[in-house]
Amino acid sequence: MEQTKFILSEKEIPTKWYNVQPDLPEPLPPLLHPGTKEPTILPPPLFPASLNEQEFSKERYIEIPEEIQQIYRLWRPTGLYRALRLEKALGTPAKIFYKYEGSSPAGSHKLNTAVPQAYYAKKAGAKRLATETGAGQWGSALAMGCNFMGLECKVYMVKVSYFQKPYRRVLMEVFGAKVVPSPSQDTQIGRKILAEDPDSSGSLGIAISEAVEDAFGRDDTFYSLGSVLNHVLMHQTVIGMETMKQLEMAGAYPDIIVGCIGGGSNFAGMFLPFVPDKLKGKKIQIIAVEPEACPTVTKGPYAWDYGDVAGMAPIAKMYTLGHSFVPPPVHAGGLRYHGMAPIVSLCQKLGIIETRAVAQTAVFKSAVQFARSEGIVPAPEPSHAIKVVIDEALKCKESGQKKTIVLALSGHGHFDLGAYDEYLSGKLADYPYPEQKIKEALAKLPEVKR
Amino acid sequence: MEQTKFILSEKEIPTKWYNVQPDLPEPLPPLLHPGTKEPTILPPPLFPASLNEQEFSKERYIEIPEEIQQIYRLWRPTGLYRALRLEKALGTPAKIFYKYEGSSPAGSHKLNTAVPQAYYAKKAGAKRLATETGAGQWGSALAMGCNFMGLECKVYMVKVSYFQKPYRRVLMEVFGAKVVPSPSQDTQIGRKILAEDPDSSGSLGIAISEAVEDAFGRDDTFYSLGSVLNHVLMHQTVIGMETMKQLEMAGAYPDIIVGCIGGGSNFAGMFLPFVPDKLKGKKIQIIAVEPEACPTVTKGPYAWDYGDVAGMAPIAKMYTLGHSFVPPPVHAGGLRYHGMAPIVSLCQKLGIIETRAVAQTAVFKSAVQFARSEGIVPAPEPSHAIKVVIDEALKCKESGQKKTIVLALSGHGHFDLGAYDEYLSGKLADYPYPEQKIKEALAKLPEVKR
Repeated sequence: MEQTKFILSEKEIPTKWYNVQPDLPEPLPPLLHPGTKEPTILPPPLFPASLNEQEFSKERYIEIPEEIQQIYRLWRPTGLYRALRLEKALGTPAKIFYKYEGSSPAGSHKLNTAVPQAYYAKKAGAKRLATETGAGQWGSALAMGCNFMGLECKVYMVKVSYFQKPYRRVLMEVFGAKVVPSPSQDTQIGRKILAEDPDSSGSLGIAISEAVEDAFGRDDTFYSLGSVLNHVLMHQTVIGMETMKQLEMAGAYPDIIVGCIGGGSNFAGMFLPFVPDKLKGKKIQIIAVEPEACPTVTKGPYAWDYGDVAGMAPIAKMYTLGHSFVPPPVHAGGLRYHGMAPIVSLCQKLGIIETRAVAQTAVFKSAVQFARSEGIVPAPEPSHAIKVVIDEALKCKESGQKKTIVLALSGHGHFDLGAYDEYLSGKLADYPYPEQKIKEALAKLPEVKR
Repeated sequence: MEQTKFILSEKEIPTKWYNVQPDLPEPLPPLLHPGTKEPTILPPPLFPASLNEQEFSKERYIEIPEEIQQIYRLWRPTGLYRALRLEKALGTPAKIFYKYEGSSPAGSHKLNTAVPQAYYAKKAGAKRLATETGAGQWGSALAMGCNFMGLECKVYMVKVSYFQKPYRRVLMEVFGAKVVPSPSQDTQIGRKILAEDPDSSGSLGIAISEAVEDAFGRDDTFYSLGSVLNHVLMHQTVIGMETMKQLEMAGAYPDIIVGCIGGGSNFAGMFLPFVPDKLKGKKIQIIAVEPEACPTVTKGPYAWDYGDVAGMAPIAKMYTLGHSFVPPPVHAGGLRYHGMAPIVSLCQKLGIIETRAVAQTAVFKSAVQFARSEGIVPAPEPSHAIKVVIDEALKCKESGQKKTIVLALSGHGHFDLGAYDEYLSGKLADYPYPEQKIKEALAKLPEVKR
């Protein structure tokens, strides 16, 4: 029987995070203050100094504190699997491997950064963290992170999701978090919006503003972000470093690495550790996949833009559809972000990675094929990557090439079965390319003279 | 750092199932035909001959066919974990280990038998399997098993659950199963019940009758049962055999093994491989845990009773509350069975195991403590066992004894968060001991002269 699983011992969990910044051929552009448009650090009332240091560090490796390593051991190292049954179903000579982060108790990769963010906040004397969540993936990861560190956690959850996805809310509460539907009565901005529109169903932009106001207003509270920022991407590099070791066990090296991008942290965690090899001449094709309905990298410019809808967050150089762009309600909630992590954006700009956009009905078709072959029901987000993995494996079938393809499978779809139901009952549709809305949003990019 | 995980390579997955029958101090009483009350085999129109052979086999080990081993590799071997954070939270000198079956794609141990049942049905020429499901755990496991073997799967799902737990239904459909709410229009018995009561919310008894009728009526279809029978328990022994190897890696041997019992298959899978050691004189306390609301072993007699509500299934010697007993609607749907596996019953009778009953509010309190310590949100069923593990660990704290406690953690609670919500919001209650209903049901036991 061929080997299916490549399993590391817990002694082989990385003890350092990998920071790609010193290895990039060009330095990252700075973050700019949203008011002055001058280079800025992460605002100190919102982030502990230690995370700000990590954000701009030029050290190649940063030690993972022992307390974090001990908690990583609850679910790390995660498995690397050979998708033998999928290969057979496709009739491809390609070897397909997937690195599965859905076995974390939060069900996704998000916990890899939630734990360190809670740790550094506690070290800096905080008692609480405040954050926003859309569909609830990030909120439940941070709830667990705070629980493990003995911090309180306040989650502003977009109101429509709060009522549509009660299980995600309950999961956060099991871990002791306080969850409120946003807009809420707990902040000035929330009260203002509710006064104007008591039936507001909320948005991620509003929820961010509430969490930021909460953290600004209290000495004991930091704000926490689940993607996009450099330190968040760095915390995720444990994924790629483990994968390298596991592929070695399998006697394999990737020809193609595929992952989905929303804010960019999951896929960056996978591919960044392979960047030095690629820069040294190794032929690795690194393919990021985004939704056609929110085609940030494939259709947006590389430009200066605000990180948030309200224009209160720092300005970053990144691929963007404009901070005021509101994507259609595709089921992959985690991929509905107007911008892209600055590091991922620079890698795209420099040709280190390439990006493709796919439509959600094709994505769910691939997800069902994956589930029926491998048993795992994938979340809608990584199912975007599965679609491209299958495409590439079928190309190998035509050409006869035995490529090694590695998939970043960032989470399970246990809380997304409503979307599968829509697909299976033939009710799922694709959204037309939102050309006009993107055009309008791009007209509102901030003016930056640099 | 102390070791948290004890991980086997896939080469160490057992290649044989363990059959306890030749090692039991007394032979198992026979199954009796419900009509003649004479010893019977498993009815051939319902079960393939190979499973009937396994049911009554006196061989100590039965080879696991390679095709099944290959599919087991999708999730086996499962992890054995040291609950270091729970130990610390309790301040106990006890060592707590848990064997986690929730990492299977079906989310529980049920897949260990669903795959072989589908395999043997296919070998015997079947094209379809029919089964019933209550909350959906068994149905989703069998849907996956059939999918892997290329069989059709028809699931009669108790109507109230069909509408209350749509995610479980969708999960089965993702794997290609046909799911209908029971009572359905697809069987005579279903149509009859609907004619009398169009609003019938169904029951497991009705769903069993529909699945049995379906399998009886078609040459291409077998019936499949998820617990209770000897061959089902045997398929689960991979759990205990892996656990033995993993404890050896940890340099530990159990003083106490704890698991929940509904039909008995999950816990039997864990403890049966330890029975020979115990019979040879090893001091292992084996504790089964059941709900106070359905106290089959702690309050029922060891008696002859039908396996099903309608009295159409074979009669077995077992602990029972009477086949007509309908337990209160506790959240641990998997523990709401009037009887108990004959093998588990005989082990209790012979003093090999002992049984305790616990109430569901205490169970959920323990479940939340476990989740906050270990990250995993347990299903309500194994949370019964967690309650007793915590009790025993606290006894060790008092006595200073460093006992090794092993918990059979049979599944996750991702689809049970509604129950957690009830508990966290203070709405969960305990049911009074259903004394009168048990008395009435016990009065209806079949008369058997043996």
